[in-house]
Amino acid sequence: MSLARALFAPRAVALIGASGDAAKNTARPQRFLRRHGYTGRVVPVNPTRGEVLGEKAYPSLAEAPEGIEHAFVMAPGEAVERALEDCGRRGVPVMSIFSDGFADSGPAGAARQARLVERARALGVRLLGPNSMGVVNLPGRLALTVNAVLEMDSPPAGTTSMVSQSGTMLGTVLSRGAARGQGFSKLISVGNESDLGVGELVELLADDPETRVILLFLETVRDAARLAAAARRAHAAGKPVVAYKLGRSALGAALARSHTGALAGSDRAMDAWFRDCGIVRVDMLETLIEIAPLLAGRAPPAPGRAPRVAVVTTTGGGAASVVDRMGALGIETMPNESGAPIVDLTMSATPEKYAAALESLLAAPACDAVLAVVGSSAQFHPQLAVEPILSARAGAKPLAAYLTPHAEKSLALLAGAGVAAFRTPEACADAFAAYFAWRAPRARPAGSGPAWPAGVPRSGALDAAQALRLIAALGIPVAESTVAQPPGYAHAIPYPVAAKLIAPGLEHKTEAGAVALGISGQGELEANIGAMLKHAGRAQPQAILVQRMESGLAEAIAGYREDPLVGPVVIAGAGGVLAELHGDFALRLAPVSEREASEMIEEVKGLAPIRGYRKLPKGDLAALAAAVAALSRLALVPGRPVAEAEVNPLVVKANGVVAVDALVVLREGT
Amino acid sequence: MSLARALFAPRAVALIGASGDAAKNTARPQRFLRRHGYTGRVVPVNPTRGEVLGEKAYPSLAEAPEGIEHAFVMAPGEAVERALEDCGRRGVPVMSIFSDGFADSGPAGAARQARLVERARALGVRLLGPNSMGVVNLPGRLALTVNAVLEMDSPPAGTTSMVSQSGTMLGTVLSRGAARGQGFSKLISVGNESDLGVGELVELLADDPETRVILLFLETVRDAARLAAAARRAHAAGKPVVAYKLGRSALGAALARSHTGALAGSDRAMDAWFRDCGIVRVDMLETLIEIAPLLAGRAPPAPGRAPRVAVVTTTGGGAASVVDRMGALGIETMPNESGAPIVDLTMSATPEKYAAALESLLAAPACDAVLAVVGSSAQFHPQLAVEPILSARAGAKPLAAYLTPHAEKSLALLAGAGVAAFRTPEACADAFAAYFAWRAPRARPAGSGPAWPAGVPRSGALDAAQALRLIAALGIPVAESTVAQPPGYAHAIPYPVAAKLIAPGLEHKTEAGAVALGISGQGELEANIGAMLKHAGRAQPQAILVQRMESGLAEAIAGYREDPLVGPVVIAGAGGVLAELHGDFALRLAPVSEREASEMIEEVKGLAPIRGYRKLPKGDLAALAAAVAALSRLALVPGRPVAEAEVNPLVVKANGVVAVDALVVLREGT
Repeated sequence: MSLARALFAPRAVALIGASGDAAKNTARPQRFLRRHGYTGRVVPVNPTRGEVLGEKAYPSLAEAPEGIEHAFVMAPGEAVERALEDCGRRGVPVMSIFSDGFADSGPAGAARQARLVERARALGVRLLGPNSMGVVNLPGRLALTVNAVLEMDSPPAGTTSMVSQSGTMLGTVLSRGAARGQGFSKLISVGNESDLGVGELVELLADDPETRVILLFLETVRDAARLAAAARRAHAAGKPVVAYKLGRSALGAALARSHTGALAGSDRAMDAWFRDCGIVRVDMLETLIEIAPLLAGRAPPAPGRAPRVAVVTTTGGGAASVVDRMGALGIETMPNESGAPIVDLTMSATPEKYAAALESLLAAPACDAVLAVVGSSAQFHPQLAVEPILSARAGAKPLAAYLTPHAEKSLALLAGAGVAAFRTPEACADAFAAYFAWRAPRARPAGSGPAWPAGVPRSGALDAAQALRLIAALGIPVAESTVAQPPGYAHAIPYPVAAKLIAPGLEHKTEAGAVALGISGQGELEANIGAMLKHAGRAQPQAILVQRMESGLAEAIAGYREDPLVGPVVIAGAGGVLAELHGDFALRLAPVSEREASEMIEEVKGLAPIRGYRKLPKGDLAALAAAVAALSRLALVPGRPVAEAEVNPLVVKANGVVAVDALVVLREGT
Repeated sequence: MSLARALFAPRAVALIGASGDAAKNTARPQRFLRRHGYTGRVVPVNPTRGEVLGEKAYPSLAEAPEGIEHAFVMAPGEAVERALEDCGRRGVPVMSIFSDGFADSGPAGAARQARLVERARALGVRLLGPNSMGVVNLPGRLALTVNAVLEMDSPPAGTTSMVSQSGTMLGTVLSRGAARGQGFSKLISVGNESDLGVGELVELLADDPETRVILLFLETVRDAARLAAAARRAHAAGKPVVAYKLGRSALGAALARSHTGALAGSDRAMDAWFRDCGIVRVDMLETLIEIAPLLAGRAPPAPGRAPRVAVVTTTGGGAASVVDRMGALGIETMPNESGAPIVDLTMSATPEKYAAALESLLAAPACDAVLAVVGSSAQFHPQLAVEPILSARAGAKPLAAYLTPHAEKSLALLAGAGVAAFRTPEACADAFAAYFAWRAPRARPAGSGPAWPAGVPRSGALDAAQALRLIAALGIPVAESTVAQPPGYAHAIPYPVAAKLIAPGLEHKTEAGAVALGISGQGELEANIGAMLKHAGRAQPQAILVQRMESGLAEAIAGYREDPLVGPVVIAGAGGVLAELHGDFALRLAPVSEREASEMIEEVKGLAPIRGYRKLPKGDLAALAAAVAALSRLALVPGRPVAEAEVNPLVVKANGVVAVDALVVLREGT
């Protein structure tokens, strides 16, 4: 039996810990399965009752009938472990666990979970959870969940599926979608992801013929590699994957950490990772619910000029609220014949006029998408403008509607016709922004990494001289340097020079008094070295890095590091304190090609002066891109020994760039 | 008869242009008045019918019965002007105009509108509109509007009123509020604001005993002074005023301009202005609907440390979606007993536990507001967590609820109890941010402006020497300067000096080659002057500004300008191209006190280095604040002759500041 069949369409389900009290959470799966028309066999397991809610119950799974394909465990404590043994013995392929007290509750629980998973592997039983609210399959009429939202009458079936790290949010998405006629196919609450994780479930959905769009509610990412592979598989199958992920703010990240126990990566890295594996990230929760029809059956848009949306409306103010928000997200509108930014039919709309405007915008090559806004008429007079939208032929061009009043019937009409319809101007603009940012999964540059230079250690922190040697080995030009020895500090670098203390992992050298710049001769060099050593509390004279002074048009930063969730990333930014204060950098998963590095450089505001802003002289952006791409190839070094590397400053000249200083920290134990 | 009575509670209404075809827009006011229980007299006016929708009709207002207190004109063309004459003759105090073709339709329409207003003033008739959708007074059972939203059954009456520049959005707010049990008092569509504007209507609502909170939907601000005064009056009456205003993005601003014909000010200036007059600005449209109960009866919070919200929830993921968003808006959460950022009752909630947690958070002095999040139970089991919120005693501390599922009944329960309830995590966080940013109207520093210095013209653009003289007259230290005359350019400033071409309104002097820095002696001075004059194409030698070279710890910018909508504003920012690229400045309405200027300086990221970031040496922030405050006092010069002034750079030293260059543009004709 396939895993998908056992998870989503089991012929018989055991409910372990099913309560006979209909008001209890643990009575819900049985009530919900019956209420929503499950056609398979339901087997309540309850040690103290021969009958549960009118159906024959069994004291344990061991005594239950043959043919159970999915066990749902709600019983607390050791009952979970006992149920697993029974599943193993009876050949039940999947056990979903609602019970908590595992990785969700501290180190002892985590250890208990690890033992459970080990035993499940040995027994050949796959686990969903613990701490999972279960699985819903609407076309398959399986409501195997404790989520109270299934009290609703006939949730509509559809072709959108969802994997959620929050059981509640699964219900939220289902109930809000249902209220406006949006249907769903599979909804899975993954709980602690002890065995079946988001990635494997997305794989199943990528292969699921009833699923066209896959939604993710994420608090963390526990297995980035598997989810990335699954997203690529979904892309290949023509199925968009959309994610709402918490942790955009430091407070949210801290909460997600305390809630999931997972490490927190940086949100910027997560953003880059989503884009890299072709996942559409939305900013707002309701966009996750509303965006599916905008993406279903469509391919990622081609990158190019700023995207342009044509807008037709029966309300100027209503359209303006979306347009204003889209403008803030970098989206433009297509001007109408008289140059106005929207086609405003306020007061003059008729069904024929609205339909004609819509058709002409959908046919216009100058716009990339069409937004149809409907005002007060949407609530009680759908024939005026909602019905023309239903009959519009969108084809490949995305069409979305925003209705200003409370208009659930019209929303349901649009959902029924497969038109994306938005309740708020903000989610509507968010969806367009997410759509236009959507890219096919990126093929990362292949090839092997640079050879590790001789004499540079492969663990611990590197000193300034070693770090520069590694940077040079990557192919990045480095300021002419030498290690000068005491006494005398003889060297062959022409003056003026810089002198730097050699110490591993020394950050903020200038502020630490570990660097002296613009030294014009031998005497000054020795005096500066003496002062540096004294400041650093070194009693003995020691070797010093002497470096040629470099200057250029601007200073940039190139960085590389291992993100704890998504792996190696590369950063390009402007130099200096201000760029740091403004978070003004571009980030991608490493490695990147030189073309991708050029795109990164374009994104950095602080590099505008060397792009010709205010007619300032242009810097060698190609050389800067080459250096960023070269640094990113640290991701290709076997074993990825580098935890963090930063070239700062990287001096940008009219011709070429040169690395003046570098900080490299290696991973422990590599 | 008071204006408020005629507008909101007329005893008899004339509907000029009322259609006998019930399906037409122009039949709506009559249908809606009857449908919603209007108790006064309805007088349809229709030149072609003796009866309209079963009520006796009159061919013109001139022939209508006595006692009409409010005429609503829907007839097109000259009928509007004729109706006005009739109103004047019959003593009808208010005429609302739905008809368009006035300032909404180009210069000819604007001229027509001006004539209409002039005539109305002469006749003593007040005008609402043209292009107004009318007035709704729910407690007063007056639905004098063409907005289709009034097709709804019994919209709930409440104590929130609204003034809208978009007629549609009036319906949007009413219908969305009604769908969740939120009631309204007065709703007014102002249309073109030819006579009755937003400001005067807010005055009426400030005095209206049935109104507790005033909402504004704004595309522009046509009379900032009157609205500011009205907002202060509302504040004095204990009534919060909340605004959603379009024009945050350039695209939105362009659309608002094309839609309203009004000038566009800068959105940053608008933001400062709202804060200055005590208006709460919300970012999202739905926040405008949902925020009222959070503000009703409350006073602006005291400024101080970062605001802190305590969160109790039945769903970790649901709470996290709000918390993450609040974090991005600078709001913190109160840690629970074990240090976690929320009180998470997922799986363990009972009504008693939830109520106890809520009471304890509401009583905790360490938090400034409480957020109650409810998951799936909110839809079908309100007794679990929604009912405990209803009975919580919030008192002065704001309490808000966010419900994750589709749960209109619970939203209505909360609305009925006066608890702010949010449908989306984003609007919830937006409302908290807006609440915490709310301040009492600011008392601007009084006093008279500085005396205008002798020899400085009062119109046109000033040259560099004149500009610096004006800056010095404000009390800002200016680099020692003199105007040196050809030939010889003798001066008494010690070398090194800077030399600057003297030309009015010359921006970007450095890029224009109009400045030479670090000149070390007389010969170099003359050579530089020659090169500058040649570059500028001046054949004749001319006077040059010679200035002492200044250097310090950082360069700042202080700016002043007249915003077209809200008047004089003052700006503080960091110097340099990067600060400009990042829009890194603080803005307030001018004038400001030195304390307020200090707060501005705190907001500028790029000034962090002179605030001690990374142990860099601190600049004289008090002197910088004094300079910003001094510049802002240009707003107190009689006649406000200065259109724009910028001190750039303003060199900040360890002790003191010094203005090195200034650009001043005066208003024409002052």
